[in-house]
Amino acid sequence: MIKVGILGASGFTGAELLRLLASHPDVEVTVVSRREGGQKMDELFPSLGGLFDLELISHAPERMASECDVAFCCMPHKAAMDMVPALLGGDAKVVDLSADFRFRDVKIYEEWYTAHAAADLLSETVYGLPELYRESIEGARLVATPGCYPTGAILAAAPLFKNDMVDTGTLIVDSKSGVSGAGAKPTDVTHYIEVNECMRAYGVASHRHTPEMEEHLSNIAGRGVKVLFTPHLTPMERGILTTTYAKLRKDVSTAELLDVYRDFYRGEHFIRIRPEGDLPRTKRVRGSNFVDIGAVADPRTGMVVAVSAIDNLTKGASGAAVQCMNIMMGLEETAGVDMAPLYP
Amino acid sequence: MIKVGILGASGFTGAELLRLLASHPDVEVTVVSRREGGQKMDELFPSLGGLFDLELISHAPERMASECDVAFCCMPHKAAMDMVPALLGGDAKVVDLSADFRFRDVKIYEEWYTAHAAADLLSETVYGLPELYRESIEGARLVATPGCYPTGAILAAAPLFKNDMVDTGTLIVDSKSGVSGAGAKPTDVTHYIEVNECMRAYGVASHRHTPEMEEHLSNIAGRGVKVLFTPHLTPMERGILTTTYAKLRKDVSTAELLDVYRDFYRGEHFIRIRPEGDLPRTKRVRGSNFVDIGAVADPRTGMVVAVSAIDNLTKGASGAAVQCMNIMMGLEETAGVDMAPLYP
Amino acid sequence: MIKVGILGASGFTGAELLRLLASHPDVEVTVVSRREGGQKMDELFPSLGGLFDLELISHAPERMASECDVAFCCMPHKAAMDMVPALLGGDAKVVDLSADFRFRDVKIYEEWYTAHAAADLLSETVYGLPELYRESIEGARLVATPGCYPTGAILAAAPLFKNDMVDTGTLIVDSKSGVSGAGAKPTDVTHYIEVNECMRAYGVASHRHTPEMEEHLSNIAGRGVKVLFTPHLTPMERGILTTTYAKLRKDVSTAELLDVYRDFYRGEHFIRIRPEGDLPRTKRVRGSNFVDIGAVADPRTGMVVAVSAIDNLTKGASGAAVQCMNIMMGLEETAGVDMAPLYP
Amino acid sequence: MIKVGILGASGFTGAELLRLLASHPDVEVTVVSRREGGQKMDELFPSLGGLFDLELISHAPERMASECDVAFCCMPHKAAMDMVPALLGGDAKVVDLSADFRFRDVKIYEEWYTAHAAADLLSETVYGLPELYRESIEGARLVATPGCYPTGAILAAAPLFKNDMVDTGTLIVDSKSGVSGAGAKPTDVTHYIEVNECMRAYGVASHRHTPEMEEHLSNIAGRGVKVLFTPHLTPMERGILTTTYAKLRKDVSTAELLDVYRDFYRGEHFIRIRPEGDLPRTKRVRGSNFVDIGAVADPRTGMVVAVSAIDNLTKGASGAAVQCMNIMMGLEETAGVDMAPLYP
Repeated sequence: MIKVGILGASGFTGAELLRLLASHPDVEVTVVSRREGGQKMDELFPSLGGLFDLELISHAPERMASECDVAFCCMPHKAAMDMVPALLGGDAKVVDLSADFRFRDVKIYEEWYTAHAAADLLSETVYGLPELYRESIEGARLVATPGCYPTGAILAAAPLFKNDMVDTGTLIVDSKSGVSGAGAKPTDVTHYIEVNECMRAYGVASHRHTPEMEEHLSNIAGRGVKVLFTPHLTPMERGILTTTYAKLRKDVSTAELLDVYRDFYRGEHFIRIRPEGDLPRTKRVRGSNFVDIGAVADPRTGMVVAVSAIDNLTKGASGAAVQCMNIMMGLEETAGVDMAPLYP
Repeated sequence: MIKVGILGASGFTGAELLRLLASHPDVEVTVVSRREGGQKMDELFPSLGGLFDLELISHAPERMASECDVAFCCMPHKAAMDMVPALLGGDAKVVDLSADFRFRDVKIYEEWYTAHAAADLLSETVYGLPELYRESIEGARLVATPGCYPTGAILAAAPLFKNDMVDTGTLIVDSKSGVSGAGAKPTDVTHYIEVNECMRAYGVASHRHTPEMEEHLSNIAGRGVKVLFTPHLTPMERGILTTTYAKLRKDVSTAELLDVYRDFYRGEHFIRIRPEGDLPRTKRVRGSNFVDIGAVADPRTGMVVAVSAIDNLTKGASGAAVQCMNIMMGLEETAGVDMAPLYP
Repeated sequence: MIKVGILGASGFTGAELLRLLASHPDVEVTVVSRREGGQKMDELFPSLGGLFDLELISHAPERMASECDVAFCCMPHKAAMDMVPALLGGDAKVVDLSADFRFRDVKIYEEWYTAHAAADLLSETVYGLPELYRESIEGARLVATPGCYPTGAILAAAPLFKNDMVDTGTLIVDSKSGVSGAGAKPTDVTHYIEVNECMRAYGVASHRHTPEMEEHLSNIAGRGVKVLFTPHLTPMERGILTTTYAKLRKDVSTAELLDVYRDFYRGEHFIRIRPEGDLPRTKRVRGSNFVDIGAVADPRTGMVVAVSAIDNLTKGASGAAVQCMNIMMGLEETAGVDMAPLYP
Repeated sequence: MIKVGILGASGFTGAELLRLLASHPDVEVTVVSRREGGQKMDELFPSLGGLFDLELISHAPERMASECDVAFCCMPHKAAMDMVPALLGGDAKVVDLSADFRFRDVKIYEEWYTAHAAADLLSETVYGLPELYRESIEGARLVATPGCYPTGAILAAAPLFKNDMVDTGTLIVDSKSGVSGAGAKPTDVTHYIEVNECMRAYGVASHRHTPEMEEHLSNIAGRGVKVLFTPHLTPMERGILTTTYAKLRKDVSTAELLDVYRDFYRGEHFIRIRPEGDLPRTKRVRGSNFVDIGAVADPRTGMVVAVSAIDNLTKGASGAAVQCMNIMMGLEETAGVDMAPLYP
C-alpha cells in the first residue's frame, strides 16, 4: 500500500481527497494535518465516520515528506509555496492543489497573485492535466493540479485551438460554478441566503484563472490566445458548466466539429463527448472525475459554442490530484476515481 | 376601478398577474378563464386564498372583450393568435404575453415559429418595453410584452448600440434562467431531480428569442445586429441573469461606460444601474419589476461585459404587462408593481 | 403619515420590515439605525434601491423615541432590553421583536435566557399575537412579537386546547424551519454547504421557544400544558412548517375537527384553514402574513395531527410586528401586510 | 464474477443500483430491462456513460432467471408480484425492492395495498434489514428490501422497544424525505416549483409504510406497537431524516440511552451512533449506505426523541438491496456499498 499524507486536510479539497481515497484500492492515508491538530478525522468530517481511524496533526511537512510516498498539499495559495519545498525534502512525490506552481513564468504568477517564495521549483513542476500532459506527469516529482475553471475551459476549447479552427481573437469563457468552489469558510459569499435562488457574476475580466487558461491554450495553439473570462456563482454545491465562444475560421458543421472532439480525446477515459443535439449538464458528472463536452457550430453567426461540465471538487481539484498521483506512482490511472456520478 | 380580465389564468404568468393585481389600487379582476372553467381561484392557486373571490370560466374572449376594460392574454403562442382578435372585438385594450405579436415582420415570426393567423394585427401592435417605446404604448390598443430573455438582453445592451460603442460583429448573449420560465407543466425539464444541482445549456444558437433581440437591438443601432444567444437552465425558481459580450469600438473606462448607462436610463424607475465594482444578482430583484444592470470594460481584450438581472415572471412577463396596462390606461406607471424585491 | 423608526435595521427582520413598509400606505420610515451608521440604505440592502432614500445612523434610541410615532426594535435578546426603556422615553409606541419582553414571569425568562435588566416592563407588555390578544394590543405601549416557532405552534394547537379536545399530556411540536431564522451572520450553520441538501434536528427538548409555547397554550387551556419541541433546519430560505401531535380526549372526525378550527378563527383575515384532505405548504404563504392550518384526526391511534405553515420572517417576525403596529395606531390591520404570497 | 440482472432499471432505484454496482468488485451486470427495450444504458442515464456497455431489453423475467445469479426487481408494487414468481423460476436469487413481499401477513398487505397475486411466496420471503435479520437473509431465496421510511424509523426505534424502555402507547414517527422518493415520473408533486422552497406534510396517518413499521417494531417489542406516521416532502433530492417520539417507562439519561444504542448496534458497519449533543444530518450519509442515529432523553416531559438519517435511495432502497445480495451470495457484506458519503 502506498502511504499518503494530506497537508491541510480540513478544507473542501481535503474532504474530497479523503472521500476518494477511502475507496482507493492501493493507498493508505497515514498522516493528515491542519493548522491545529488533535482532532479525530470523524469529528472534523462526520461523514467519514467509520472509514478512517486518523487523528489530525499540526502541519509537519518534513515528517510527511519522510513518512509518506505521496503528499497532497491542500493549502491555499501563498501558504502552499511555504510548505511545498519541505514536502519535497524527502522521497515523497508531491501533488499541490494550489495556484502556486501552476505557472511556468513567475512573472505571470506575480502579476496576478503575489511574490513567489519558491520560484526555483516552477521549471520542474508539471501542470496536472493528464489529457494534455500525461507523459510529463509520469516522471514528475511535483505536479500542480489545474484550477477548477481552467480545467473546464481548457478541455472545452483545446481541440479548437489544436486544429486551428478558431480566430486569434478573444476566446470568451462564461463559467457557472457551484458554491463549494468558494471554500468552507463562512462568509457573506457562502451564506445560504446569498447563494440560494441567486445567480451572479463576479470577478469579470479580472479573475486569476484567466492567465492559466491563456498559458495552456496558447501552448496548444502555438500562438498567443487571449481569454475574456466571466465566472458566475450558481445556486448549487458542486459543478462547473463552462460555455465558451469563438469565431470559426471556416464553415464547419456541428457533426464535423464533434468528430474533431472525438478524435482529440480518443482513449481518454474521463472525457465523454455528448452526441449532437445534447449538451453537458453538471449533475451528470457530480461526484465523479468525468468531463462531459458538447459543441455547436452556428452558421448564422460563424461562431462555435463549446460547453463542458465538471465537478469542481473532483476533476476540478481532488479527483485530478488522485488521477495525477496514480500516473506518478505507476498505478491504474482510474483507481479510486472511477466511481459513477451521483445521479439522481 | 378598471375591470380586468385574464384569459388563460392557470399558468405561471397568470398566477403572477394575479399576485400583482391583488395589490393594485386601481383595478379589479372580474373575469378569469382557463380551458375548462368551474374551479374557484383559490383551489387552483391556494396561495391566493382570501385575496380573490373568483370562479374560473372556460375561455370566452368575446365576453371578456365586452365586460372588461383591459384583457391580458396569457395563452402560449399559436393559441394566443386565435384569441386576440376576439379580445379586440370590444372596447377592451389588450396586453398579450405570448410571442405571437412581438414581431413587426411576419416573415421573421413564421421562420422561427409557425404560420400566423392574425398577421394583420402586427403593424399596430406595440412592443411592451416602456423603457424604449413608452409613447407608443400610451396610445396602443394591443401591446405584446417582450420575451423574458429579450427583456434582459435588450436592456443590458441597448445603451451600447444606441451610442455606437460596439462593433457590428456578433453580440454574445449568455443567459441563466430560473425554472419557472419552463412553465407549470410537469415534464422531464421541470422535474426537481433534473433541475436541482444541475446547470445546463439548451437551445444553443437556435432559441426563438434570438430574432426578438436582433429586431429591437437593430432598431436601436440603426443597423443590423446579429445575436448569438445561449440560454441556460439554472437551479432556481425565478430570475434571469444575462451576461452580454461585445467588442468595443474604442477605449472606454468602466466609469465612463456606467455614465452612459445612467444617462440612457435617467428617470426610469425600474432600471437600477449598479455602481462600479458591483454587479447585478437575481435575488436583489426577485418578485419585483426592477432591472439591475452593471457593466465592465476590459482594456486587456477590448471587450465590454454588460450584465442584467430581472425576475422572469415579473419584469420578464406579468410585471411588464401590468406596467404596460398602467401606461395604456393612464394610471401611475408603477401602480401594483412597485413592491420591494423579496430579500432575504 | 406615521413616522417610523427601526432600531437595528441591518439584520433579516430589519430587511423584512423595510420590505413591508415600502408598500405601507400610511407610514414613512424616517430613522433607521445599526451599530455603526453612515451607510445608505441601498448600500446595505441593494434590493431596496430606489425605494428608500435613507442613511443609517448609529443606535440612538432617545432620538428615535422623540422623532418617531412608532419604533421597532430589531435587536437580538439581551441587547433589546438595554434599548427598549429608552425607546419608551418619549411618546413613541414600541414593538420589540426580540424575546426579552415575551414572558410575563421574569423567572421563566431568566431560567431559559439570562438575567433581565428591565423586568419592570414585563407586566405591561402585550404578546403580539393579534389572533389571541387583539384587544390588549390596541391599548398597548409596548408589544413583544412572538417567536417564529411559537407563532406556528400556538396557532396550530390553540383551538384544541381552547375546546378541551386533547389530553393534558405532552404536546409534541415538530417544526421545520428555513434558514433565514438563523440570521444574517455567516456561520457554520448558515454556510450553503451545511444547509443545502441537508435536513437536521437541533436543540431537541432544549430550545428557548419551548416555554413561550407553554405559557400561551396554558393560558388558552386554563391549565398547565407541557410541550416537547424539536426544531429542524430545512434546506430553504423562508417558512416554518409545524407538525403538532396530541392525544384526543374523545373520538372526533377530521371534518368535525376542521369545523372547530374554522369557528375558532372566524373573521381572522390572516388565518386560512385548509379543506379536508389538503395540508399547508410553506410556499403557499411565502412572503406573506398568512397562516395556513390543516388538521387530521386519526381513529387508529386516537391522535390528532395539526399542521401550520407560516413565513418565519413575515408572520413569524416583521409581518406580525407591522400587524401589531397597525392595531396600536388605529390603522387598517392589514395595511402593508396584505400582499399575496410569492408563488410560484 | 456474479451475474446480475435488473428488472425495471429505468427508475431511480434502478439508476442507483447501477451506480453502486459500477464499483462492485465481484459482480457484473449482464441483463437490464425496462418496459420497452432497445436503448443503450447511457442514453437512458447519461451519467453512466463509459461505465456500462449494455442495451436495455424488454422485461423478460424468465431469461433473467436463467442467465443471472441474482436478479433485482425494481418494479413498483403490483407489477412486482407479477414478475417475481418468474424470476424465481431458475436458480437465481431474487431481491425485490417493492412493497409486495414485505409483509408476512397477506391481510395486512391487502388492507393497505391491493389484492395479492403471489401470496404463497410471503412465508419464505425475508425482510431485507440485515441489522435485524441477517441470518435469515443468508439462506433466503427471496428478500424484500424495506421501504425507505421504515428503514429509518425501525432502526431509530428498535433499541427502545428491544429494551422495553418505552410505553406501549403510540410511537410518533415524523419523517422528512427528499424528493427522489417520489420517483422519476414528472408530476405535480415532483415539479421543481412545487418542491423548491416548500415544506409540506402528506399522507398523514394513512401512509402505507405505517404497517411495515408496526410489524417489525412489534416483532422486536414482543407486543403490538402502534405507529402514527407523518411523512413530509423536503426540498432536497436525497435523504430521510426521521424524528421519533415515545414516552419513557423510567428515567434515563441521554448518556445511558446512547449506551443502549451502541450496545444494540455493536459491530454493525453501517450504523453510526452520534455522540451526545450531536444529531444526524442527511448530508452526512448522502450517497452512502450509512445510517446515523442520535437520541435525547428529556426529563422535563419524560419523553425520548430518537433521530435517524439515511439516504433513501441507498440504505433506503438500492444500497440495502446490494447489502442483502452480498449476504445471500456469501460476499463481503460491504462490497460495493462502502463508499464515503458525498460531502461536501
